[in-house]
Amino acid sequence: MKQKAVFYHAGCPVCVAAEQQLATALDPVRYAVEIVHLGEQKSRVAEAEAAGVTSVPALVLDGAPFHINFGAPLTALK
Amino acid sequence: MKQKAVFYHAGCPVCVAAEQQLATALDPVRYAVEIVHLGEQKSRVAEAEAAGVTSVPALVLDGAPFHINFGAPLTALK
Repeated sequence: MKQKAVFYHAGCPVCVAAEQQLATALDPVRYAVEIVHLGEQKSRVAEAEAAGVTSVPALVLDGAPFHINFGAPLTALK
Repeated sequence: MKQKAVFYHAGCPVCVAAEQQLATALDPVRYAVEIVHLGEQKSRVAEAEAAGVTSVPALVLDGAPFHINFGAPLTALK
């Protein structure tokens, strides 16, 4: 079974670069990557926060948050 | 031909977590991942810096630097 990877972003330039290069670089055999635009899906900000995400872009891999560079703080998306 | 991915770290706990989860999650079909411990290979700090790395852990993918969470500034490794 594939492990879940969630990439949270907000459409910012830093986010898009990370999405196009890093999120797509994950092994498709092992990971099912879901891309979530928090600016458009504000209802999922709480979920990202619960996973430990404090800024975007961020990748939650097996439940662990990895902040990739820095686009915007999560607080700006609430 | 595989693309080159270089994961720079310094052995810190944040670095180890990122290495074990994120660096190993990359698609092995498309990426040849090299792990570089800058604390032990100080001669490569300049190379990381030239790629735009300012802190570790960081992953340089196709020449673009992605800083993953924050372990230590590159300046601490010089």
